[in-house]
Formats: sequence, C-alpha cells, structure tokens
Amino acid sequence: MIERLAIVGVGLLGGSVAQAARRQGVARRIVGIGRSRERLTPAVADGTLDHATTDLAEGLASADFVVLAATVGAIAAMLPAVARAAGAEAVITDVGSTKRNIVRAAERTVADRGLLFVGSHPMAGSEKSGYAAAQPDLFRGATVVVTPTESTAPVAEKRVTGFWEALGARVVVLDPEAHDRAVAAVSHLPHLVAMALVEAVGRFEPAALDVAARGFRDTTRIAAADVAVWGEIFAANRDALAGSVAAFRRALDELQRLIESGDAAALGAALGRIKAAREALS
Amino acid sequence: MIERLAIVGVGLLGGSVAQAARRQGVARRIVGIGRSRERLTPAVADGTLDHATTDLAEGLASADFVVLAATVGAIAAMLPAVARAAGAEAVITDVGSTKRNIVRAAERTVADRGLLFVGSHPMAGSEKSGYAAAQPDLFRGATVVVTPTESTAPVAEKRVTGFWEALGARVVVLDPEAHDRAVAAVSHLPHLVAMALVEAVGRFEPAALDVAARGFRDTTRIAAADVAVWGEIFAANRDALAGSVAAFRRALDELQRLIESGDAAALGAALGRIKAAREALS
Repeated sequence: MIERLAIVGVGLLGGSVAQAARRQGVARRIVGIGRSRERLTPAVADGTLDHATTDLAEGLASADFVVLAATVGAIAAMLPAVARAAGAEAVITDVGSTKRNIVRAAERTVADRGLLFVGSHPMAGSEKSGYAAAQPDLFRGATVVVTPTESTAPVAEKRVTGFWEALGARVVVLDPEAHDRAVAAVSHLPHLVAMALVEAVGRFEPAALDVAARGFRDTTRIAAADVAVWGEIFAANRDALAGSVAAFRRALDELQRLIESGDAAALGAALGRIKAAREALS
Repeated sequence: MIERLAIVGVGLLGGSVAQAARRQGVARRIVGIGRSRERLTPAVADGTLDHATTDLAEGLASADFVVLAATVGAIAAMLPAVARAAGAEAVITDVGSTKRNIVRAAERTVADRGLLFVGSHPMAGSEKSGYAAAQPDLFRGATVVVTPTESTAPVAEKRVTGFWEALGARVVVLDPEAHDRAVAAVSHLPHLVAMALVEAVGRFEPAALDVAARGFRDTTRIAAADVAVWGEIFAANRDALAGSVAAFRRALDELQRLIESGDAAALGAALGRIKAAREALS
C-alpha cells in the first residue's frame, strides 16, 4: 500500500493513473501536481485527487511513490527539482514515451541523493489529451514497459512493477535502449507514417478526402496526436526512429518494385506473408 | 423496383449487396451466381438468395439489374460473357475498387449490344472476406462512387445511383480517372503503407511486436486485407498509385528532415497542420 502517491501532471496519462489508483485502492492519499490550479480542479471535484497543488516541493513532500506524467522533454527538465523535493525513501517513476534520455538524466540527478528511480512507459494512450480524456481502465490489459538499468535498486523495480500490475497492466522489462528501438518501430514510426499519409493526401489529392473510408480513418487516426508530446518524442528518439524509417523505406521500395514488375505471383507471396504477420498480431 | 437482381460473386461485398437488397425490399427476386455451389449454399439457406447457380448465362437470363462483385481482374475478364448472357434491358454495374480498366473493358464489350453499364465502387469493406463476413448494413452511411463517362446512358446512371441510395449509401459521381486517382490516395496508398509497416517491423524489430499497442494495430489493420483482391487492385491502378506513393515519400522526407533539423518550432508547426487536417476529417 502506498501512503502518499504524488502524480506530477494530471492529464490523460497522469489522470488515468490517479483514477486507476483510486479505483484499485493502491494508495491511501493521492496528490496531483500541475502548472495551473484550474486544470487540477476537475480531478479534485470528482474525488480522484485528495489534494492538488502547483508547488512541486509541497506536492512531493512525504510522498512515498511519485509518477512523473509530463511530456518527455518536461520530465527530463524537472528531474533536478524532483530529486531535491522528494523524500529519501520515495520510489520515482515516469510515463515518458522515450526512456534513454529520461533514465540517463534521472540517474545523474538521483545518484547523489540515493533516490529510487526506474523508468516506465505505459503503451496506452489516445490521440486525445487532457484530464477530460482520462480513463480509470486505461491500463487494464495494456502493456507497460519498465526499464531498469544495472544501477537500478531491485526494490525500485519491484515496487514500480507491482504498481502497474495493480492497475491491471502487463509489465515487460527492457533496458532503455531496447525500449527506445522497440517503440521507434511499433509506435514512433507508425505515427510518423500516419502523419505523412495525411500530409500527402491533403496536398496531392485533397478532394479524395471526400471519399475516404474506414481504412484511411483507422490508418491515420494517430496523426491527430498531441503536437507538443510528439514533437518531443520524435526529437528524443531521433536515432532509433531513423533506423525504423530506413527499414520502412526498404519495405516500401520492395513492395512498389513488385507492383511495378507485374509479377503477380511474387506480389501475392509478399502480401500473403504480410497478411499472416498482421493476423498473428491481432 | 427491380424484378430480378443478379449478383455475380456472393462474398463479402456481393453478399452484403444481397442482404441489404433483401432487407430494403428493392428487388422481387435475388439470384446469386458463383463458382462453387457449396459457397452459395449459406446465402440460400438464410433466405438472402431466392436462387443460386454456377451458370452465368442461366443466372443472368431475364435479370433486369446485375451487380458484378468479383475482384477487379475477374470483373474485367467476365465482361464479354456477361455482355453475351445479359438481357438487352439489363442495367449492369460492378463493385470493383479500380474503375478505368473495368469501365473501358465494359464500354468495349457492351457497346455493340447497347447494354446499360455504369461502374460503381462502394467505399466499404473489411479486411475480412467471404459471405460469412457480409453485413446487410455495410452500405448504410457509406460512400459509393459511381463513375459514368460521356457514353453512359443517363437512365443507367440514374438506376445505379438509386440502387445504392436505396441500400443507404451516399453516392459521389466521379469520372473513372478521377476515381482511380482518389482511391490511390485514400485507399491504395494507405493499404500499401500499412503493409510496408508490418513488413518493416517484422523484419527489423520483430521483438517489438510484443509491446505493440492500439496505434500500431489500428494503423496496420488493413495490412491483413485479402491477398488476391489487393494484388489485382495494385496492378490495375499502378500508375495512379505511383503518383500517390511519390507524394507520400515527399511528405515523409520533409517530416524526417524537420525531426533531424532539431527545429522544434518548425516541426511543431507541421504536426499542428497535420493534426488539424486529420481532425477536419473526423
């Protein structure tokens, strides 16, 4: 049982963490910390937060479990202040979509103070943002990647893993580099591709949007993702993303070459292999 | 009211046409024509078809409205036989996903006989196939593109438009070339991109599929589309697709350049423009 759960950033993810923690009864008190009192009000009014504050030091004082739920750039930037404000016994995690940059920064800032940090990345979210989009069951059945390193205290990994499992998630453990390569492939690349699709059709054949059906809508849904969040994610994971984009370009080149070759059997074999791979995922 | 509606190919689309026509009472009798009697049996057993046959000439005899619901290659290939078997008063349409090749072939084969043909493309479907996936409400609220040319008889366009509207669809009229460019952009390009995504991740970072979330699943759902159908679509619409792929590559290049430039403001502006374009689509 957590005595005092502090959540920094009470938007889609932080709000969902608070609602899920409240519902599952994993914390005695839940404190929300944000930049504006107005934006914290709804989560107090609906009983999700016991207390809300715009003062990081006040919010973190006596918290024994801290979740940093801002954008990847903001999380990295707040780490020195978090390290100063958090109690020596606090376990700290975050929900950032990239992990190398955050985990490195955390290990620099918390090492001196002996704080317990381990990174997390819940593979759940929405193209929507803000507390109004929060859902208490967002993590139920979702995958959360937890990213310990050689210098992570086992107790920190254990408590963070247990926290996500209590919210209904399946935890996968990866080191920060493996995490960043994996999400470049299955998250950042699809976002970039969806965005390029919207841009290409909007410029090249805008009238065609009038006849767009479910295929186009599903494929491009994530192109409406939060601009600030995704600008920071792309920047933070630039190198791994470049590798995924290169693999994607090769696959696109090969498929286009098969189409232009007129070799129906070879094209059919490639499409069949891809269909089987996608169906195996389901 | 159609006296005798003949549907050639009773799979996902043809079966949905039959079920919708039955439910809406737009035809007195509905006849299904297919390659195998076994595959036609379920649609007779559930009362959707009044009669099923594997004999094209028998099925089309005395039909006053004919829907060709095979793959784009099969539709083009069957047109001479359809032209010979159909009655002189029959209105003929199809559901093929490309239109230039089918409409040209139809105008060659039906011109001598004075048959009434106009192409259709219902922008509805599924990554599933076969009669088991048919739905009577598949066309409700869907867009159907109808593609008359200068030589189309107005009565044919009127009857085909009225048919789709009776099944609940919104009809958009485009010439076959404009149709093929539009679907290259909003349908064929997204399918190709989704397939390249699955191929790239499966090869480059297969372990990452273990942490794939809804974004990847939605973006790649259509990569599991029917292999034979899509091989023929890509081949038939190769030229328009090449234009769409080129536009997509330019958009991807530009986004990647913005990411690599480190210019957060310029990247944010591009992502904001794309988000607004996607949200305008809803």
